[in-house]
Amino acid sequence: MGETIIEKIIRHNTGKAVKPGDIVTVNVDRCMIHDIFIPFVADKFEEMGFTKLHDPDKVVLIYDHLVPASQQDDTRHFHKGDEFVEKYGLTHVHRSDGICHQLMTEAGYVKPGDIAFGTDSHTTTYGCVGAFSSGIGYTEMASILGTGTMWIKVPETIKVVIDGELPENVMSKDIILRLIGDLRADGATYRALEFSGSTIENMSVASRMTMANMAIEAGAKCALFTPDEKTAEYCEIELNDYQKSLVGDEDAVYMKTMTYKAEDFVPVMACPSQVDKIRNVSELEGTEIDQVFIGSCTNGRLEDLRAAAEVLKGKKVADFVKLIVTPASRKIYRQALADGTLDILAEAGAIITHPGCGLCCGRTGGILSDGERVVATNNRNFLGRMGTSKVEIYLASPRTAATCAVAGKIVNPE
Amino acid sequence: MGETIIEKIIRHNTGKAVKPGDIVTVNVDRCMIHDIFIPFVADKFEEMGFTKLHDPDKVVLIYDHLVPASQQDDTRHFHKGDEFVEKYGLTHVHRSDGICHQLMTEAGYVKPGDIAFGTDSHTTTYGCVGAFSSGIGYTEMASILGTGTMWIKVPETIKVVIDGELPENVMSKDIILRLIGDLRADGATYRALEFSGSTIENMSVASRMTMANMAIEAGAKCALFTPDEKTAEYCEIELNDYQKSLVGDEDAVYMKTMTYKAEDFVPVMACPSQVDKIRNVSELEGTEIDQVFIGSCTNGRLEDLRAAAEVLKGKKVADFVKLIVTPASRKIYRQALADGTLDILAEAGAIITHPGCGLCCGRTGGILSDGERVVATNNRNFLGRMGTSKVEIYLASPRTAATCAVAGKIVNPE
Repeated sequence: MGETIIEKIIRHNTGKAVKPGDIVTVNVDRCMIHDIFIPFVADKFEEMGFTKLHDPDKVVLIYDHLVPASQQDDTRHFHKGDEFVEKYGLTHVHRSDGICHQLMTEAGYVKPGDIAFGTDSHTTTYGCVGAFSSGIGYTEMASILGTGTMWIKVPETIKVVIDGELPENVMSKDIILRLIGDLRADGATYRALEFSGSTIENMSVASRMTMANMAIEAGAKCALFTPDEKTAEYCEIELNDYQKSLVGDEDAVYMKTMTYKAEDFVPVMACPSQVDKIRNVSELEGTEIDQVFIGSCTNGRLEDLRAAAEVLKGKKVADFVKLIVTPASRKIYRQALADGTLDILAEAGAIITHPGCGLCCGRTGGILSDGERVVATNNRNFLGRMGTSKVEIYLASPRTAATCAVAGKIVNPE
Repeated sequence: MGETIIEKIIRHNTGKAVKPGDIVTVNVDRCMIHDIFIPFVADKFEEMGFTKLHDPDKVVLIYDHLVPASQQDDTRHFHKGDEFVEKYGLTHVHRSDGICHQLMTEAGYVKPGDIAFGTDSHTTTYGCVGAFSSGIGYTEMASILGTGTMWIKVPETIKVVIDGELPENVMSKDIILRLIGDLRADGATYRALEFSGSTIENMSVASRMTMANMAIEAGAKCALFTPDEKTAEYCEIELNDYQKSLVGDEDAVYMKTMTYKAEDFVPVMACPSQVDKIRNVSELEGTEIDQVFIGSCTNGRLEDLRAAAEVLKGKKVADFVKLIVTPASRKIYRQALADGTLDILAEAGAIITHPGCGLCCGRTGGILSDGERVVATNNRNFLGRMGTSKVEIYLASPRTAATCAVAGKIVNPE
């Protein structure tokens, strides 16, 4: 019988064929801890009685949520992390290089077919290169640090097939938002989302990353894209036979298959305050806004910034609107600096912040307050996410967001 | 009898010769309100019974301390400001273009010989182009908005003469810090500081700005530099006869004269937690640090960023140290982007934030906590200024600060 991608990855890792519902122990290829969780992971690690890391090379520590520090207590997390680094000999440490999920594939820590875990819900992102990755809590992370292993229940797979050519004003963000609307926020809980079809094949790794990143918003355990030439180029590797095999078999068993025509997608938004409350942008036109945010691990990559710059070139952000732009990593910042993208955005009036989580998680860089409305490219519009609980967050693609920034209200991108 | 520069400016404005101690009413050429104070100014303005601005063209509103917003309540200031703009027809409004004191001369609002007031203590900055400028409270600002006038007591003048060539590792920040150390924090209270000598003549307007900016730290009412060809170029004007006359007369009466040889200056720091606790950097070498801040209205200009980049080129910020860089304005940001300075800083590991007040006033962008030590190029090292009251702040030049960032401790710049 055939296998889905996740079943192939687990078989490769454990040496045994598996089926959904099996509980297995896997060897973890790489794990990621960020600044918010490092104090809790460190304490739990020692509380569990571990005295050394199973393999320091498999551990990556990234300061991103709190960089630059915006509260007096933030630096406590850095000091606790730095102590852990010194004590246990961590070498993969990023103190201000960007958002964890961007760095894990960008810096080569996670490769196609790997199994990775991170202390953050959006760890599903690394599925963009065909890795199985998922978010866990600090107790499980402490255990991984000590043992190098992790238990998982093999998930069922939902197959998503998208064929055809996307309209020009549609980005992959519009696809994943529509999918979350169709699945609902709990529709893929503990399931793998496996993407295929010609639209997916023609899509950049960056665009796939946006979709893998938001898979968790439908509850998915992981999202998986078949590694291809684009993946190999992005990862700066040649795919080996195992990696090339990571495609869902024709006779694999799927929980269900969802099929879309690319031509049917339109720009959409997730409306306040649920990620699955999806409306066409055209239905929302005219709604006045106070701020626009382009950034985050969902949409802070070069193609996202370029899409925004294409809209903003030679234009100005509307008078009473603030446009916050946060590249996802230092590398992207420097690329956008070199190719003129940042200057176009700065000239248009953007507030360009240091690469990090910043506004997405309501830490810094444009906090909103009661009665304000923001169009944002990140992944969650929950109450209180980017400021007070009386802020309305509309999630959208970078192209839509930039269009709204110029108009000062919600408008459909052309 | 001769006149000092401040006496000439007041005579030109009022039409009457003045002497120190006279209380006169002047016509205000330009006034500046920033985001922190606009709610209080707006309320007071209406409480005083004014219904229109004396002259909207003379008023500049700048959002800088709270951009980007880091606290939920910050945006209230923007909304209050925006309401005032709409109601009273303000046209000179900057919502995210940089720090007020940088913009007032950079954007051409204040010219040589003008009289300007602002709701911020570092309003002394505009003396760099030979304007009389000083900080006031919100009640006085509300009165200026309604009447266009302001009272002042004519200050005595302290003359500071500096001749010769500065050592390569010394910047104008080292001069003003040394001067504050010599005068003490209250040594120039309600006096004008008038700078002259060949060192001053050879100095860029940007370097003069650093000195005028910090004059208030010795208590000075204002700082004055004679307008010259550099000033004309910076302001993009031709100096008129009045502006050319703004030099202290040989027979003017000065409260005192302080004379320095440029060759005698060395890199210095203001040590925690007084601005006048000045030590040579060489005496402090080896002190470990947690963070470095290069920016603010004191030292966030292109020459400052370039001085830092010169030190940092091809090097890396020390592992456990964070380097925060904040250009003083959007224009400077774009200049530093265009000439490669930003990329050098980003490559070295700097956290480059949006132009604004940010960390200098402890709002955002690298807040420090108990036990941390920072080398910073801004203007105040008071307890609690950049985080908790248990943070140690050492004020220094950008060259010194960048050198310390690489070393991870205090070292003398070469």
